[in-house]
Amino acid sequence: MSQAFLEAVRPLLGPTALKTAPDALEAFAVDWRKRYVGKPLAVLLPETTEQVAAIVRLANEHRVALVPQGGNTGLSGGATPDASGSQVVLSLSRLTRIRHQDSDNKTLTVEAGVTLQQVQEAADAMGLLFPLSLGSEGSATIGGNLATNAGGTGVLRYGNARDLCLGVEVVTATGEIWNGLRGLRKDNTGYDLRDLFVGSEGTLGLITAAVVKLFPKPAAVMTALARVGGPADALRLLQLAQAQCDAALTGFEFMSSVSTGLVVEYFPDVARHGAQMIGGQDGKPGYPTVLLEISHPESQEAATTMLDRLMEKALEEGVVQDASVAQSVAQAKALWHLRETITLSAAEDGPHIKHDIALPISSLVTFIAAMDQEMQSAYPGIRLINFGHFGDGNLHYNVAPPPALAAGKTKTERHQIFKDFLQTHEDTIRKMVHDRVVAMNGSISAEHGLGQLRRDEAKRYKSAVEQNLMKTIKTALDPNGILNPGKVL
Amino acid sequence: MSQAFLEAVRPLLGPTALKTAPDALEAFAVDWRKRYVGKPLAVLLPETTEQVAAIVRLANEHRVALVPQGGNTGLSGGATPDASGSQVVLSLSRLTRIRHQDSDNKTLTVEAGVTLQQVQEAADAMGLLFPLSLGSEGSATIGGNLATNAGGTGVLRYGNARDLCLGVEVVTATGEIWNGLRGLRKDNTGYDLRDLFVGSEGTLGLITAAVVKLFPKPAAVMTALARVGGPADALRLLQLAQAQCDAALTGFEFMSSVSTGLVVEYFPDVARHGAQMIGGQDGKPGYPTVLLEISHPESQEAATTMLDRLMEKALEEGVVQDASVAQSVAQAKALWHLRETITLSAAEDGPHIKHDIALPISSLVTFIAAMDQEMQSAYPGIRLINFGHFGDGNLHYNVAPPPALAAGKTKTERHQIFKDFLQTHEDTIRKMVHDRVVAMNGSISAEHGLGQLRRDEAKRYKSAVEQNLMKTIKTALDPNGILNPGKVL
Repeated sequence: MSQAFLEAVRPLLGPTALKTAPDALEAFAVDWRKRYVGKPLAVLLPETTEQVAAIVRLANEHRVALVPQGGNTGLSGGATPDASGSQVVLSLSRLTRIRHQDSDNKTLTVEAGVTLQQVQEAADAMGLLFPLSLGSEGSATIGGNLATNAGGTGVLRYGNARDLCLGVEVVTATGEIWNGLRGLRKDNTGYDLRDLFVGSEGTLGLITAAVVKLFPKPAAVMTALARVGGPADALRLLQLAQAQCDAALTGFEFMSSVSTGLVVEYFPDVARHGAQMIGGQDGKPGYPTVLLEISHPESQEAATTMLDRLMEKALEEGVVQDASVAQSVAQAKALWHLRETITLSAAEDGPHIKHDIALPISSLVTFIAAMDQEMQSAYPGIRLINFGHFGDGNLHYNVAPPPALAAGKTKTERHQIFKDFLQTHEDTIRKMVHDRVVAMNGSISAEHGLGQLRRDEAKRYKSAVEQNLMKTIKTALDPNGILNPGKVL
Repeated sequence: MSQAFLEAVRPLLGPTALKTAPDALEAFAVDWRKRYVGKPLAVLLPETTEQVAAIVRLANEHRVALVPQGGNTGLSGGATPDASGSQVVLSLSRLTRIRHQDSDNKTLTVEAGVTLQQVQEAADAMGLLFPLSLGSEGSATIGGNLATNAGGTGVLRYGNARDLCLGVEVVTATGEIWNGLRGLRKDNTGYDLRDLFVGSEGTLGLITAAVVKLFPKPAAVMTALARVGGPADALRLLQLAQAQCDAALTGFEFMSSVSTGLVVEYFPDVARHGAQMIGGQDGKPGYPTVLLEISHPESQEAATTMLDRLMEKALEEGVVQDASVAQSVAQAKALWHLRETITLSAAEDGPHIKHDIALPISSLVTFIAAMDQEMQSAYPGIRLINFGHFGDGNLHYNVAPPPALAAGKTKTERHQIFKDFLQTHEDTIRKMVHDRVVAMNGSISAEHGLGQLRRDEAKRYKSAVEQNLMKTIKTALDPNGILNPGKVL
């Protein structure tokens, strides 16, 4: 049955577009964080939308499950096949054309396999900005970004991937091509199919191309690091910054003292750039810190004035204890690098539990206080590597074992000790965090999607009504269950 | 069968909540523009979500069609029952509670029957801004705004109703309650059900409450009127304004010379405020004009500087021929009033054809030039009352008969002559406009929805694939076809 499918597909594709040799499949079989190891029957690499549609039609005919994949940088295993040996990876990475550039409409029409960085570069060449930005942008594809509704650091001002998309071309689950590549800001002629496909993680249809929204480049971008007393100050600072800067506030990232402390410990050179704000040197405790970014359409001078005024007011009102403004692009980059090094520092420290949660912004302070306390009572000395997109209500509330468990041990020993600790406690800790998040009307996956990682948890937390609505839509659009089975639902 | 439904519903509702007397039904039976006159069996006015759900369950049981209605201000007949005498109007206007105000999260949770103006006022009382704004905001309800994904004048900066909604409570077509009232900026835990219900015009589910997004109030709002050579200049001005002001550009409305000329003719007192920019006095031709609005988060001074710089540059580059900046709130209001009086002036002039189209912004100039020419060749002397949200690519490209047809006639005679003209030519003209719009990848309903007015046209213009996707979703979610049959699809 599966072999018959491959034989039927083969003549449709170029000679290198159907892979079945075990070593050729490897890169497609494992997710980026190596949590999921699948066993695909084959990997298909079509180059056109028509080929994708033909593959999907044949998959329906032969009842073969397709697992769409882009840059394979997802964090929830959404693009990894299962271990049955019967699923076929459908890589969209060879759909790489930039179909249309439209400066006056501020749009780009790109195929799914164009990397995020290539989209950014194409926009830049037009004198415009594509503001979606992620750690993995060099490999992540725009198709994958849209399929997972990617977030990143620009959401506060520009929205997530869904907000940055004006239209899509989709191969439906039955193998038809829907041309929804409209570059319109307004279109009220029916159901919002676009937003339904975006974020559906390849379970309802395959996004083969998209029209993305571009923006004017700001005249000046300013970055600052502010030392705050804790999350309550961070919240007051956010309110002040939004009131004074509105859309010019393009970044607002919180870093707990444990987060900054880890950077100081493992990457002192990186931490040096924010030393005065983040503290943590010479064994002293680190400080909670906020990274702010202002993007101003007018001039460097206007941006400086705006940021200075904000910081003056924040200091005056005691919202901020100290602040430092980057004086050059290099300094600004160094501050962002500090923020981005938290993940790497935590990895150096050892195994830990990652969460990607969102809450109403008004609940962040209460959540953090109650959650930190609950964790410390349950596991004295446990560390909360809490950082992230505070301005979006999105925290990476990660949890690392108590360091005392590994005092005086080597790195290798420590990693093993932490691993053992998590083996015992990970499920309980995750449940503690997610239970509280859901009780406070939050989300257990703010930007990483459900994939396979959060699928069963989502079932536990979502109402029956919502689950049924999702299942009804899935069954209606993909009656044979061909597209990415086992993900999301 | 229908009577049995009413008998079953009666005990669920308060004594004034089920209306069947002909004179009590009248206000619910006719749309705002009086184009559609329906004949409802009854009108139901529930006060709670639970009542709505119970009604829908009974409607399924008795196979009675429900026509949801809010403030009944729609422009496409989407909330008007048919003439069969068997459909029941389900008014959501008594769901009027403001359930939750959250300043730190910048959200309001409101029930469907709260008017748009009440939402604006509640936001204002919190020191925040709800930017959705429409002519009918005093009667239009937020439920109706969301059901139709309303647009208005704030879309350029803040987006349409869909963009302003973080979560919804929906009574499904089978009478279950989905609580999707999340106040989250980020949530990637499944399909975007919210955006599917928003804009579905009550055909997939009934929005009974919503969480809407609020924004900081700008420190200063400045309005200007700029005389331009035509649409090409308007486009250049838009690009300049976005590059220099980015998100601070909150309004960009185009008015063709015919549009401003009509205001001069019928409402000279209103036109006086923009006299120098719009021309058209003493029988001279009017000028194409752009109304610009800048909202600045910092100060009056900063707003003035920004607008002055923009206008200087625009004059310098010859994009604008003259410009006048409102010197007071009253003057700014007068300029907006001028813009909003176009519709009334056109109505005074007589019957005409309304269009609500959207195009890629890069296609506006070509569209207008080609369309104007095609119209003038087909109907010499015909008038193009072309105005609207140019910055969103959304034009109200309205068409009025040649005035020469009624030269020297009284107003009553003129209206009759124009009516006769339209009787003969309306369908042809509409088809000319919409054919070109669709050929240029545009939308035939940018912000007014399909309702019954554009339903059949949408069928002609939409691909079979898209229509099938919509029908599949409709059938899956509303298997008995209870919700608003005959609308959208």
